[in-house]
Amino acid sequence: MTTVGILGGGQLARMLALAGAPLGLRFLVMDTSAEACAGQFAPLLVGDYRDEAALADFAARVDVVTFDFENVPAESARWLSARVPVFPNPGALGVAQDRLAEKMLFRELAIPVPPFADIASREDLDAALARIGTPCILKTRRLGYDGKGQFRLKPAPGAGTPAAVQRVADQAWAALGPQAERVGLILEAFVPFDRELSVVAMRGRDGSFDTWPLTENWHVDGVLSASLAPARVDPALAETAYGHARRLAEALDYVGVFALELFCHGGELLANELAPRVHNSGHWTIEGAETSQFENHLRAVLGLAAGATTVRGHACMLNWIGELPDPAPVLAEAGGHWHDYGKSPRAGRKVGHATLRADTPEALAAALQRGGDALGRQSQVAPAIAALRG
Amino acid sequence: MTTVGILGGGQLARMLALAGAPLGLRFLVMDTSAEACAGQFAPLLVGDYRDEAALADFAARVDVVTFDFENVPAESARWLSARVPVFPNPGALGVAQDRLAEKMLFRELAIPVPPFADIASREDLDAALARIGTPCILKTRRLGYDGKGQFRLKPAPGAGTPAAVQRVADQAWAALGPQAERVGLILEAFVPFDRELSVVAMRGRDGSFDTWPLTENWHVDGVLSASLAPARVDPALAETAYGHARRLAEALDYVGVFALELFCHGGELLANELAPRVHNSGHWTIEGAETSQFENHLRAVLGLAAGATTVRGHACMLNWIGELPDPAPVLAEAGGHWHDYGKSPRAGRKVGHATLRADTPEALAAALQRGGDALGRQSQVAPAIAALRG
Ligand SMILES: Nc1ncnc2c1ncn2[C@@H]1O[C@H](COP(=O)(O)OP(=O)(O)OP(=O)(O)O)[C@@H](O)[C@H]1O
Ligand SMILES: Nc1ncnc2c1ncn2[C@@H]1O[C@H](COP(=O)(O)OP(=O)(O)OP(=O)(O)O)[C@@H](O)[C@H]1O
Repeated sequence: MTTVGILGGGQLARMLALAGAPLGLRFLVMDTSAEACAGQFAPLLVGDYRDEAALADFAARVDVVTFDFENVPAESARWLSARVPVFPNPGALGVAQDRLAEKMLFRELAIPVPPFADIASREDLDAALARIGTPCILKTRRLGYDGKGQFRLKPAPGAGTPAAVQRVADQAWAALGPQAERVGLILEAFVPFDRELSVVAMRGRDGSFDTWPLTENWHVDGVLSASLAPARVDPALAETAYGHARRLAEALDYVGVFALELFCHGGELLANELAPRVHNSGHWTIEGAETSQFENHLRAVLGLAAGATTVRGHACMLNWIGELPDPAPVLAEAGGHWHDYGKSPRAGRKVGHATLRADTPEALAAALQRGGDALGRQSQVAPAIAALRG
Repeated sequence: MTTVGILGGGQLARMLALAGAPLGLRFLVMDTSAEACAGQFAPLLVGDYRDEAALADFAARVDVVTFDFENVPAESARWLSARVPVFPNPGALGVAQDRLAEKMLFRELAIPVPPFADIASREDLDAALARIGTPCILKTRRLGYDGKGQFRLKPAPGAGTPAAVQRVADQAWAALGPQAERVGLILEAFVPFDRELSVVAMRGRDGSFDTWPLTENWHVDGVLSASLAPARVDPALAETAYGHARRLAEALDYVGVFALELFCHGGELLANELAPRVHNSGHWTIEGAETSQFENHLRAVLGLAAGATTVRGHACMLNWIGELPDPAPVLAEAGGHWHDYGKSPRAGRKVGHATLRADTPEALAAALQRGGDALGRQSQVAPAIAALRG
């Protein structure tokens, strides 16, 4: 009997546990909250990730450790890895936790990135702004998620004049400057991307590498709103993306599933970030692929063979943020699948998703149209419909 | 928040809970054993199904009740149904619990059955044997499962002579006669069937009816060994089978998933039995159909729309009895899916299953061949391979 320990008890841990049950696995989920939704289907250990006694208890009860949440302190992951195998390894986690380290690694691996600069002070910001220009985004290096910890610097009226640039820098610094010391800051050029893509990929303990087909993603207010797979892209572009993901996984000796988020701009791919875990843009794999990202993550972590990542037709995932809409229109669709994470509603919170699956792009577009109309969510489904019909 | 109560905590309850989690459901499973394997993923209430205090506790904590196990006392189901909705209804459960009531209903609904007789005494057995002849099977009316509570009466040497018939009757009566009073007995003609089929079907609260495609099944020692879907049969035969299932569901006002087991003999269908729950011959639907029998059973019980029962290619389920084989050969197959029920090994116990799925019959046959060879289970896969290639 193998028990998998998961740090973080949100929907990702929940879906990992549900996918792992048929493999005969047991789970122990650690979270700071007794309400963590994975606890509805797996034993939950409530504790602080920095509390050594809690970590020791956790380590003693599990055979292998993985993550639902990448912002577990890297030291805690390292402490655990001295006692029990931890996948992905704490070094890889550490890189993915830091937007600066991540981008430096991308560059080292010849994975193109937007211009960026490390920002430790207001002077750094001024210098970087002079080099990168507006529009750009100031982000915390660590602990950001779902677009939190970001400030967009738009070209101000009178753009380019030293006074206009100063005004924008003042606003950005007022918003995030106070966090410079604790979590670090990075300034990135704003990429006027044509589309956002992600590679959901996996690497086994034996170094084997697999990816699901490229996924196209749409964000609203920095939060993922919809994903479509397979993304309708030039096969050569997809191969480039898979190559980036593979080099990254090998450089980090990564084990498990991860996502590489990419901007596509004028036919070129620019890397945005690495998510060192199963990823929201891979939720469609539950119904849309032969093996889901959740099952394959567990297979990788346990040293089992990867399941096939082949797709079944076409799938679109719609995120439910804040609260769940009426499930009826989704359940009424032949390829409609509902995912309620068992969370209480709260503004900005990911509380569930739906996946619509169909055998052809036309059928999927029609299902999205019906679903979007019935739910009054035409704007959420529109980009995926346009991509399917375009 | 809806909590579904499940009476019985075996692998069916476990797979129901795993399928229901994405619908946002909570579960409470009641079982007589604290080791019930569904308890690994759902809260477990340990108690006797006849214990009114335990039933009252159970009823107070759930919104709707269903079954993993059809041999829950019908009075307990009735007691519960006065307090909380119970699906399938206790009347339907009562019929399915009794091989005699079941067969009488089949006959009433013009669903052909093999010759049978109610056996209350040794005299009844003699009279029935004179009418039905050998080979035939004496079965307990109630509480049989996986071929338990059955005795096969073969044509004895000197077949047909009164003395030979008496010898066979003596043996049968010695084996099952003592149970005649407690659980009742039925004598059935032995059907020299060409194949065994099952209809896994569902009926909603609103009377809507759906079936998955017909499944072909192979038993070994009275226990299901392998299932293949879609069964390769004449579409008219399949329609007849679906019609039988539909009439049955309507007559019983059945709500939920059920299986109708059929013998096919010389192009004719004869009903064997009704399983008033999700069924082992429907496990392939997890990966082989758009919606699994487990999810659709819950959708039916909750009054939600049925999910599509369309198939994805071809699937073969292999049962693991007694102990699990090595999972590696199954996990190495592109369409290989593993189901470990988290039970300890024990002779005759269903401890898991595997499903192999492929887009074409040829590819499925090849996968079965490789898997059977690697596991040394050629005889388990052979009938399905022959059916796929035949
Ligand atoms: N440099 C950029 N240029 C253009 N758009 C950007 C840039 N950085 C972020 N965005 C937009 O904001 C979204 C979220 O940003 P990012 O991925 O950095 O944040 P996050 O908080 O880590 O989000 P998530 O948890 O969804 O990955 C991106 O998907 C993109 O739509
Ligand atoms: N009348 C019959 N003629 C031929 N074979 C029979 C007959 N009755 C039972 N069998 C064989 O024994 C198997 C199990 O019988 P049956 O379905 O009655 O038992 P059970 O204990 O209810 O099994 P299960 O739980 O698998 O449904 C059948 O699938 C069939 O292979």
